[in-house]
Amino acid sequence: MTTSISIFDTTLRDGTQGEGISLTAVDKLKIAQKLDALGVHYIEGGNPGSNSKDIEFFKRARELNMRAKLTAFGSTRRKNSTCEQDANLKHLIESGAKAATLVGKTWDFHVHTALQTTLEENLNMIYESIAYLKRHGMEAIFDSEHFFDGYKANPEYAIAALTKAKEAGADWIVLCDTNGGTLPTEIHEIVSKVTGLIQAPIGIHTHNDCELAVANTLAAISAGARQVQGTINGYGERCGNANLCSIIPNLQLKMGYSCVSDEQLKSLTSVARYVGEIANVHLPVNQPYVGNAAFAHKGGIHVSAILKDSKTYEHIAPELVGNKQRVLVSELAGQSNILSKAQEMGLDVGSAAQSREVIDRIKEMEHQGYQFEGADASLELILRDAYGDSVDIFTVESFKILCEKSAGGMQTEAIVRIRVGDRQVYTVAEGNGPVNALDNALRKALVQFYPGIADIHLSDYKVRVLDEKDATAAKVRVLIESSDFKETWSTVGVSSNVIEASWEALVDSIRYALLGMTKSEKFPEALPESAGLVNH
Amino acid sequence: MTTSISIFDTTLRDGTQGEGISLTAVDKLKIAQKLDALGVHYIEGGNPGSNSKDIEFFKRARELNMRAKLTAFGSTRRKNSTCEQDANLKHLIESGAKAATLVGKTWDFHVHTALQTTLEENLNMIYESIAYLKRHGMEAIFDSEHFFDGYKANPEYAIAALTKAKEAGADWIVLCDTNGGTLPTEIHEIVSKVTGLIQAPIGIHTHNDCELAVANTLAAISAGARQVQGTINGYGERCGNANLCSIIPNLQLKMGYSCVSDEQLKSLTSVARYVGEIANVHLPVNQPYVGNAAFAHKGGIHVSAILKDSKTYEHIAPELVGNKQRVLVSELAGQSNILSKAQEMGLDVGSAAQSREVIDRIKEMEHQGYQFEGADASLELILRDAYGDSVDIFTVESFKILCEKSAGGMQTEAIVRIRVGDRQVYTVAEGNGPVNALDNALRKALVQFYPGIADIHLSDYKVRVLDEKDATAAKVRVLIESSDFKETWSTVGVSSNVIEASWEALVDSIRYALLGMTKSEKFPEALPESAGLVNH
Repeated sequence: MTTSISIFDTTLRDGTQGEGISLTAVDKLKIAQKLDALGVHYIEGGNPGSNSKDIEFFKRARELNMRAKLTAFGSTRRKNSTCEQDANLKHLIESGAKAATLVGKTWDFHVHTALQTTLEENLNMIYESIAYLKRHGMEAIFDSEHFFDGYKANPEYAIAALTKAKEAGADWIVLCDTNGGTLPTEIHEIVSKVTGLIQAPIGIHTHNDCELAVANTLAAISAGARQVQGTINGYGERCGNANLCSIIPNLQLKMGYSCVSDEQLKSLTSVARYVGEIANVHLPVNQPYVGNAAFAHKGGIHVSAILKDSKTYEHIAPELVGNKQRVLVSELAGQSNILSKAQEMGLDVGSAAQSREVIDRIKEMEHQGYQFEGADASLELILRDAYGDSVDIFTVESFKILCEKSAGGMQTEAIVRIRVGDRQVYTVAEGNGPVNALDNALRKALVQFYPGIADIHLSDYKVRVLDEKDATAAKVRVLIESSDFKETWSTVGVSSNVIEASWEALVDSIRYALLGMTKSEKFPEALPESAGLVNH
Repeated sequence: MTTSISIFDTTLRDGTQGEGISLTAVDKLKIAQKLDALGVHYIEGGNPGSNSKDIEFFKRARELNMRAKLTAFGSTRRKNSTCEQDANLKHLIESGAKAATLVGKTWDFHVHTALQTTLEENLNMIYESIAYLKRHGMEAIFDSEHFFDGYKANPEYAIAALTKAKEAGADWIVLCDTNGGTLPTEIHEIVSKVTGLIQAPIGIHTHNDCELAVANTLAAISAGARQVQGTINGYGERCGNANLCSIIPNLQLKMGYSCVSDEQLKSLTSVARYVGEIANVHLPVNQPYVGNAAFAHKGGIHVSAILKDSKTYEHIAPELVGNKQRVLVSELAGQSNILSKAQEMGLDVGSAAQSREVIDRIKEMEHQGYQFEGADASLELILRDAYGDSVDIFTVESFKILCEKSAGGMQTEAIVRIRVGDRQVYTVAEGNGPVNALDNALRKALVQFYPGIADIHLSDYKVRVLDEKDATAAKVRVLIESSDFKETWSTVGVSSNVIEASWEALVDSIRYALLGMTKSEKFPEALPESAGLVNH
């Protein structure tokens, strides 16, 4: 029989301590529902004692009828006081959450330095606060802050603190490596000792300051812990919390534990990307399991081997976590990459001569500085054009940019002349820079035909000088990443003129979306009847 | 006595297999010098058998007289052939590198599926290739590809492959977790077995597909491995290689091994950021040890505690790795760094109030997105301006850019109005793009006063979007590198308009040169008599 591990998600609480992570109550509600669908067991929603946003979240989250246990976070009562007088503890109970996490001190140094109280009073604070929650019918989870540092400094005291929590009725005793400085071997040794001494369900809460949060979590589970506290994408204070997107598949696919169902595991990649979108944070392409490059192959030898058997260079089947294999087309790889890419797109790759032609064209473009490994959508457009699987949506006739800096500040405008079917559209728009102005003008011209274009936004823009010897006169490569909240695609442009290169990538991005390649079905195939020659 | 660990850096080889990582030969030379200063023991520069860029790198790198051993990468000879006939092996020898890494198969499945040869022929390929390198006087490092998967599938064969390499004289036997799917406990167990069986120095090479590359490396070292192969910032195929920026401090500060000197360790953060800049890749703010948020405190309780004692929420002193604590939105190093920088430039740092003012100004600029780590010249200009050690050389009154794309192609012109002393200069110039046109117009305006300006050229130009959520309307940072064939200097500009940001960096670059800060003495201090109002 497989052992179950309880997954405690704290993205909405500890995750928001990360630099640049800020979530509204509505953001939190959206994420909570995704987490619930993923199958996590606890959703720590915030600290209702610290702000009204979190109070609102708990109020509205109760109505969602989630299967996961909604959990509120707070600290043990203030020193030299009572639980009944403690506003924070009161907020925990009033939050309506079924469970509460209480953080308490277990490191004597922290009791003296941070709390500035006696070791004995701290033990009272733990006991009384847990007992108070239990009296009010809540499930109580004790997060023993800095437990590992505390155990190394004064093991008797650290264990005494856990014992108090247990005696007061804590349902879970969670050992926290708050500063993230502990090594896996130490974690294993200390958790083994604790599970021998404390007869209660033990959890683990780690931070990534040594890039070891995932390993530390696995080490604790091997030593008998049965709950994992972590966050989606490892968001959290400083270097982040333990990353559930790596821990769940490691436990379930590699170590034989059970966390969520196999079906739920397949939603992991989309949950990770969704949370990244809502949190406004770029997901690193190389993020394990869920990143866009997690199963991307670039080296020629690797590519030719995975075409024989994907197990040669993949540790798991990417579909198990809802990700997919990608073959990066680059100078490092050959013809086989391009053909497999076309087949992946469901294209009829036609005759050998036709394929030879498109491969020659791509190689020539790469020679000129195009790079398709970061520009899947541009490559797809070339392949679809080559194999006759595309339609002409609009044609660019000309554009013009005016950019002026004077004492009055900086002004930029773009004028665009395009043709949609047999209608010519001529628009002008301002922007914060030449590319933004072009983007605005192009959308303004197209939105009347394709209203869905309003949902597309450019999510990244990168410029790289190709021949650095002659920098501002050299060729530049522009990579643009676009997104419609569901999917993300990348396009490329190359020119000695950064404006022209940007324009090329911009046009590719919008063509790709309009061709319905994002599968979002929001773009009409035909032009509206009313469309005529329009001047804005 | 502390045990030394050999650090083998493969940023320039395996690192470039990462998606979006592309380095020119010049980039590689710059990075190699930083790695050498950091104190790594081996620098794997590339695969001279695969492309001419890497051949050029090895040729030029030999002239740098680095202390680190320059290492070339290749594979064992082709099947059913001889080493003497093998072009790749020949390239290794001709590269002039002192050491070579040879990758060979140790997983029977790969021998059958990828190589499509017999198990015996693969053993011959390993033995003969290593022996060939040794006969040619090279140090030979055997990278046993997929060793852990191979050992789990067929331990006898995997060990036989290592034994062949050892018998042929391999100086290091490196165990590779090529697919990144192995767990730390497995790594520890298998490395322990290998060190018991093979009497040769053992190395470890891991990948991050389970977010365990760092932990796996530490586990191997604990089990007796003595060389670590990894990359700066963990760049590499799929989810990346083992991250040396986390491994080196973990080994040295936490586990008592010796990798580099304490002084060199203090350069870790700047090396990590430098490599990120050159590769044009965003360093994650939460990257362990070296990230901008690695020692940043956001939580209110955390902040009040670290003000009492920073040990309360910091696992190491950030200065040990050249990073720094951040509490509020205070960016670049504190006051002391800026002051020491000014003193380094020979400036009289004046009163405390004056220093406070310039530091506040720099902090405010950093808050807006300026970054002076890669733009020394811009920082120097600010400090010289602040401490009265500069003169006004020219003032920009306005500029204008016209950029037009039509059937006839792309045309860009820039009009610049500047003031030099009491003369107004008004010029127009064409360019291959807006920044090139501005550059040309500015030089055209200044060359009559400062003929030496003709020797200056821009050697690199980089654009980075700061707030990626709103790409073409977001703030961008432009870094420009300039050179006069003797010296190189870098400047920065930030704006929501890429043209304005470029212009700022351009003006800084030329001001820096004209201020004689390049010490090339080719710029006259005074204006020529003939200078008047000029219209071009």
